[in-house]
Amino acid sequence: MLQPQGEAAQYFRQLQHDICAALEELDQTGKFIEDPWTRDGGGGGMTRVLSGGNVFEKAGVNWSQVMGTLDKSFAAFLPGMGQQFMATGISLVLHPKNPHVPTVHANFRKVEKGDAQWFGGGADLTPYYPDIEDVRHFHRVLQSACNRHHPKWYSTFKQWCDDYFYLPHRHETRGVGGIFYDYLGIAADQLSGPTKDHSPHALTEAVAETTAFGFVKDISQAFLDAYIPIVTKRMSEPYSDSQRQFQLWRRGRYVEFNLLYDRGTQFGLRTNGRTESILMSLPPLVRWDYNYHPEPNTAEAAAMAYLKPHDWLGGQSPERGDP
Amino acid sequence: MLQPQGEAAQYFRQLQHDICAALEELDQTGKFIEDPWTRDGGGGGMTRVLSGGNVFEKAGVNWSQVMGTLDKSFAAFLPGMGQQFMATGISLVLHPKNPHVPTVHANFRKVEKGDAQWFGGGADLTPYYPDIEDVRHFHRVLQSACNRHHPKWYSTFKQWCDDYFYLPHRHETRGVGGIFYDYLGIAADQLSGPTKDHSPHALTEAVAETTAFGFVKDISQAFLDAYIPIVTKRMSEPYSDSQRQFQLWRRGRYVEFNLLYDRGTQFGLRTNGRTESILMSLPPLVRWDYNYHPEPNTAEAAAMAYLKPHDWLGGQSPERGDP
Repeated sequence: MLQPQGEAAQYFRQLQHDICAALEELDQTGKFIEDPWTRDGGGGGMTRVLSGGNVFEKAGVNWSQVMGTLDKSFAAFLPGMGQQFMATGISLVLHPKNPHVPTVHANFRKVEKGDAQWFGGGADLTPYYPDIEDVRHFHRVLQSACNRHHPKWYSTFKQWCDDYFYLPHRHETRGVGGIFYDYLGIAADQLSGPTKDHSPHALTEAVAETTAFGFVKDISQAFLDAYIPIVTKRMSEPYSDSQRQFQLWRRGRYVEFNLLYDRGTQFGLRTNGRTESILMSLPPLVRWDYNYHPEPNTAEAAAMAYLKPHDWLGGQSPERGDP
Repeated sequence: MLQPQGEAAQYFRQLQHDICAALEELDQTGKFIEDPWTRDGGGGGMTRVLSGGNVFEKAGVNWSQVMGTLDKSFAAFLPGMGQQFMATGISLVLHPKNPHVPTVHANFRKVEKGDAQWFGGGADLTPYYPDIEDVRHFHRVLQSACNRHHPKWYSTFKQWCDDYFYLPHRHETRGVGGIFYDYLGIAADQLSGPTKDHSPHALTEAVAETTAFGFVKDISQAFLDAYIPIVTKRMSEPYSDSQRQFQLWRRGRYVEFNLLYDRGTQFGLRTNGRTESILMSLPPLVRWDYNYHPEPNTAEAAAMAYLKPHDWLGGQSPERGDP
């Protein structure tokens, strides 16, 4: 079995273990299978998937450490010299069965290329029937973790998340956001033109590698505190078949985002990654209905109103259930 | 309601009517709704969708005529001078309920840009449980229509189809192919560098506009002859729940192709097209299972063997049921 090389890879491997253990405890019946794999160009990973559980219909938590040579056009897009790279991290998407429990995504990674190294990642929540208190809880936990490192990081990374998880063809955010950051821990002058163009929120001040890694550890530990209380609170709520169908329809947007826009998917497919590990993020069951729109004044219409950037923790607080 | 402008647009509008009428007759219970729309940048279309029919779970047949100004980087990719364009045509995807009936896609279009005009399109079949005689019938009808115009067009356009409807991350074709052609009716010296690079099969000889249009009319009339006999033959075959689940899983590949690679989807989204009409091609219900592979020596494993280029009408004929 592939052994993690270096402190970051080891940390992420242990994080995968801890998160899977916590999710199994929560689910009670589901167990994560372990699927180790190697990559032709160098490195490999460990994909862990729980299917058909009590709480989770499909939960995927992937750890990987890959290295090798990027193709030239892609290498030019990233900071650092040359085409050699190493990337390690975990990526997870949890699809619950009950439509009252939100789907969640998180990703924590470190990339090295030539003379540059940086951290990227984040966590974001996609509820089907959003509850304003749940959304605030999720953001509040992430905000606290950010505030322990820098007073401005939450607002910067929250906005980055809103901008990134956006479906222009739907004029909708993917969910209610969270935080997203990238190029953390490299000097601003190492950001090349094309990368900078796509990363208007990248920090302009230098952040030491140890500071960046400390932040990533803190945020990744906060992730379960942000998500699990929401699951615990909602997982036993009864739901109807029409609520289930609404969930399947909303999952279609998740698929659209991941295949049309997601940079992790693009990166994975372009670096000859393992297809099943990249696409394990796709929901287990999905529906597309032509030109469906929820009826006005329904819980479904209210849910759609959450799909734009909101200042969830700001002074002008939305009412419960109504953003 | 938007009226078609010009002979090609009128032809395609009538074609939509004829195809929908034939499909309604076949389905017996399902009816196509009519959804007219206009496009902000210019033009519009008529989307017709049949949902929850006896034969078709979801059938979408879209006619459109759009015009306006392309953004500069996209315009540079297409033949013809300037950024002004007009595109008209129909596009259809039919998703049957019964897994023994193949999904089919067809598209017939004319594009004008600056001093250049050309036809593009094709038809391709995606069976779930393929039958070799059905596959041959589909190809034979298209071959006959091609042969009435040029002895080499079927083999050229068949190979173009195999190359185009290919999922590199799966090492699979989308289905059993058919024909695909583009830039038909423009002079070879009007094909710009980037277009040429992406179209290695584009004809090098000049084809008059009337010849090209005559071919498109012939192929588009042949489409129903290629597809409907297969539906009639298979639509009453009984199927099990596990066959249904295999169909839902195979539909996932259709989604992956359409969102990751399809040029029509890219063109539509990049020209500010109508999202619901572009994405009406997505199947009604889809599943993704982590790392699923059919058991050896099953009908499902046999079906997967069809997903590579085959010379269906060639001398070395495959046996029935085994490509």
